[in-house]
Amino acid sequence: MTTETARPEHTTYVHGYSDSEARRLGDQADTLVGLLHADTAYPAGSRVLEAGCGVGAQTVHLLAASPGVLLTATDLSADSLAQARARVAAQAPAADVVWHHGDLHRLPFPDGAFDHVFLCFVLEHLPDPAAGLAALRRVLRPGGTITVIEGDHGSAFFHPETPAARRTVDHLVRLQADGGGDGLLGRRLHPLLTAAGFTGVAVRPRTVYADGGRPALAEGFTLRTFVAMVEAVRAEALAAGLTTPEDFDRGIADLRRTAGPDGTFHYTFFKAVAVNP
Amino acid sequence: MTTETARPEHTTYVHGYSDSEARRLGDQADTLVGLLHADTAYPAGSRVLEAGCGVGAQTVHLLAASPGVLLTATDLSADSLAQARARVAAQAPAADVVWHHGDLHRLPFPDGAFDHVFLCFVLEHLPDPAAGLAALRRVLRPGGTITVIEGDHGSAFFHPETPAARRTVDHLVRLQADGGGDGLLGRRLHPLLTAAGFTGVAVRPRTVYADGGRPALAEGFTLRTFVAMVEAVRAEALAAGLTTPEDFDRGIADLRRTAGPDGTFHYTFFKAVAVNP
Repeated sequence: MTTETARPEHTTYVHGYSDSEARRLGDQADTLVGLLHADTAYPAGSRVLEAGCGVGAQTVHLLAASPGVLLTATDLSADSLAQARARVAAQAPAADVVWHHGDLHRLPFPDGAFDHVFLCFVLEHLPDPAAGLAALRRVLRPGGTITVIEGDHGSAFFHPETPAARRTVDHLVRLQADGGGDGLLGRRLHPLLTAAGFTGVAVRPRTVYADGGRPALAEGFTLRTFVAMVEAVRAEALAAGLTTPEDFDRGIADLRRTAGPDGTFHYTFFKAVAVNP
Repeated sequence: MTTETARPEHTTYVHGYSDSEARRLGDQADTLVGLLHADTAYPAGSRVLEAGCGVGAQTVHLLAASPGVLLTATDLSADSLAQARARVAAQAPAADVVWHHGDLHRLPFPDGAFDHVFLCFVLEHLPDPAAGLAALRRVLRPGGTITVIEGDHGSAFFHPETPAARRTVDHLVRLQADGGGDGLLGRRLHPLLTAAGFTGVAVRPRTVYADGGRPALAEGFTLRTFVAMVEAVRAEALAAGLTTPEDFDRGIADLRRTAGPDGTFHYTFFKAVAVNP
């Protein structure tokens, strides 16, 4: 659910780099800010690294919750980084941010350069998330923390649930896997962080559940975040021969019904905090 | 995940009536008591109906949280009811309980006889849960509340996830559907309660997430609650021709691995509270 990718050689990307995608990421971050970000706050003066900041959708919330941090934000896409910079300039003009264009696997910072590392919807796009975590641990000081937020598309279930709706979600997972990523990464956070040598690994599910009693959440999350994300891979799914226009569009229509007054939608994010020993 | 069934003509039952099943239900209720029951407390003197109390696994927790209620507990199975009675006598000897053996669709109580209705893992076994809710609403006074707790086996996802493990879970859902139930009922609570005429319907997910950092939960929930429940349908799945002994056993072995130090397991219960207008 982000714009970070470790595969610069790919010109297409499972979540796209379009304007509507940037807007979707902004909508998503705004809807989910309480759920995902509320309990992350770093002391003023902390040296914080946001790895894979994308268009800055999470960056502005990080800065709002932690005024006075010394933030370094990196991304592989110069375009995304420019959007992040503009977004932060507009929403947090006083923030102290160093922008770095580059690959999180090869950061030009000394060992232990940061007190805290933060990444949100990034590992899901890495062909080798363990290698990514190892590279980030290098630049984290002993005793410093890493905070990781990831989704897991296998956590999506809904009512009414139709085979066509389920297939469209599966196409997204399949395309992301074909691109070297893992749309089911959330469930792997604990073993990945543990294997990377972090300690005190605490992973907590963060559940989004929308029903007819919560129309704003059904609109903001089910439709404008989740269904929009699935819909965005239409051309790619057709090009890959995974589906037909009719079947894909039926799946999207069925998914949209889950945001109606009789529908329900469930999705789980995972948030992990761990320490570099 | 209960022992209530609306189909007395069936001598077998998807979750079984054995001693080990009664023990499993007790383990499950004890592990989940905080998650599912902690926020349910009725004032002393309230007339409370527990519909489908089964072996009393939830009943003892209900009574512990609400001392002084006037509880009526019903179940379709005389055997289960006897076990519930013994359990309550042992764990809550001072409780004021009327035990009623009968079908929740045809309760011999006057309209509005109860201030509160409580049911846990019951609707999932009814061929027509809407009819069950209508029958329960009749005996609930205007302004009284109904509290419903249900699981949803479609919420189960885990790591590592193998096709064999997924298939064994699917067999459970399929067998329950063949028996007229719905192992995916949790996601339908909001529309069901709304359609039954309840108001102020508030449904909240209650997530169980176990990983290598929570071995007691992996043992108490993943293994002794969830895997034990799936394992219990082995004979039925084989008799129905859904699987082979080898494939079923491989699925169970794979599910067990998700409770190991590198595994993770996720499951969502839903708890609903609504008012009879």
